[in-house]
Amino acid sequence: MATPVKVYGPPLSTAVSRVLACLLEKDVDFQLISINLAKGEHKKADFIKIQPFGQVPAFQDENISLFESRAICRYVCEKYKEKGNKGLYGTNPLAKASIDQWLEAEGQSFNPPSSALVFQLAFAPRMKLKQDEGLIKQSEAKLAKVLDVYEKRLGETQFLAGDEFSLADLSHLPNTQYLVNATDRGELFTSRENVGRWWGEISSRESWKKVVEMQKST
Amino acid sequence: MATPVKVYGPPLSTAVSRVLACLLEKDVDFQLISINLAKGEHKKADFIKIQPFGQVPAFQDENISLFESRAICRYVCEKYKEKGNKGLYGTNPLAKASIDQWLEAEGQSFNPPSSALVFQLAFAPRMKLKQDEGLIKQSEAKLAKVLDVYEKRLGETQFLAGDEFSLADLSHLPNTQYLVNATDRGELFTSRENVGRWWGEISSRESWKKVVEMQKST
Repeated sequence: MATPVKVYGPPLSTAVSRVLACLLEKDVDFQLISINLAKGEHKKADFIKIQPFGQVPAFQDENISLFESRAICRYVCEKYKEKGNKGLYGTNPLAKASIDQWLEAEGQSFNPPSSALVFQLAFAPRMKLKQDEGLIKQSEAKLAKVLDVYEKRLGETQFLAGDEFSLADLSHLPNTQYLVNATDRGELFTSRENVGRWWGEISSRESWKKVVEMQKST
Repeated sequence: MATPVKVYGPPLSTAVSRVLACLLEKDVDFQLISINLAKGEHKKADFIKIQPFGQVPAFQDENISLFESRAICRYVCEKYKEKGNKGLYGTNPLAKASIDQWLEAEGQSFNPPSSALVFQLAFAPRMKLKQDEGLIKQSEAKLAKVLDVYEKRLGETQFLAGDEFSLADLSHLPNTQYLVNATDRGELFTSRENVGRWWGEISSRESWKKVVEMQKST
């Protein structure tokens, strides 16, 4: 039996949960190694050796150590091509290019405003930090524009990169989960017909439901 | 002879110049189609059809239309595997994973502060826009931290992803070119020994010198 891959970091982190969702879709065994962010374990020398930016997640497989959640997901899909969901990163070059395009749209256009909102609206109150009202307003306006583009796209195809669920959709799960379930801005998604339908479909996948369970039990 | 691929957008755009550098490295013929941003041509209906976010670049090859510069670069490397610089996106899965990791580090950690600085310091004065001093200070501090990580890494390997020039290095060229040559913050790069050595090497590649010439003649 193959040694499980290792994921370092708490499932509550959006970037860690992106990697967990990918591993569950691909049916790849993993070992989750706890990193206590409150205790600053991600800034300690041993961890910096595998994640030089001092962020989570870090990832290890047989002969490679990686960071950056989207790069880890790409690697998992390539390395474990024949396992689990075989179409997650496309089965031909054109499908793959479309997935890369929407995965970049997530990383470059969706993630900056949505992660700012997750931090300001869901985490800042728990950490007793003052919210930045200007940033919240600006991020909400930016995210609304991105979701208008998604609304049109999702009226033409079932999922972002085409008619199959892919890494591009999966990558949106962590931030959207918090925005819909832990803030009062879920309407940004649910008030848009196609985006709301898409969110219902992607968030009810077995892989994602397992990640949410892992988040609840930590 | 194959039909040239099409790139829509001005070479002065950092995202457009990223794609041009990749095409020149891969020795792939291209046709550059002018999009006048000052006239708002990127927001017109015809352009929105191929780039729904109304941004440059857009890209077309035989049977595909793409946006997002890093996704276009990945596609070009996969499709034209046998042309030009064959190692640009790695020649084995481990090399590719390392390139993806540092390409994501560029997109997620390097690009946000560096593109904010390029806009504030190089473009805002030309456009007679007021500079945001707070954002400049914050971005400079963030970029310095990223470059400290790069300094360490580039003391261990010649280039970011290993000992070969790759897409990960290439992706840093557009913003760094502006910061070093069109602002007074070039020292962020040149004062760091390994980062300065790296910048000297990657910016003197023939492909990039051609892109800079294209920028000057537009």
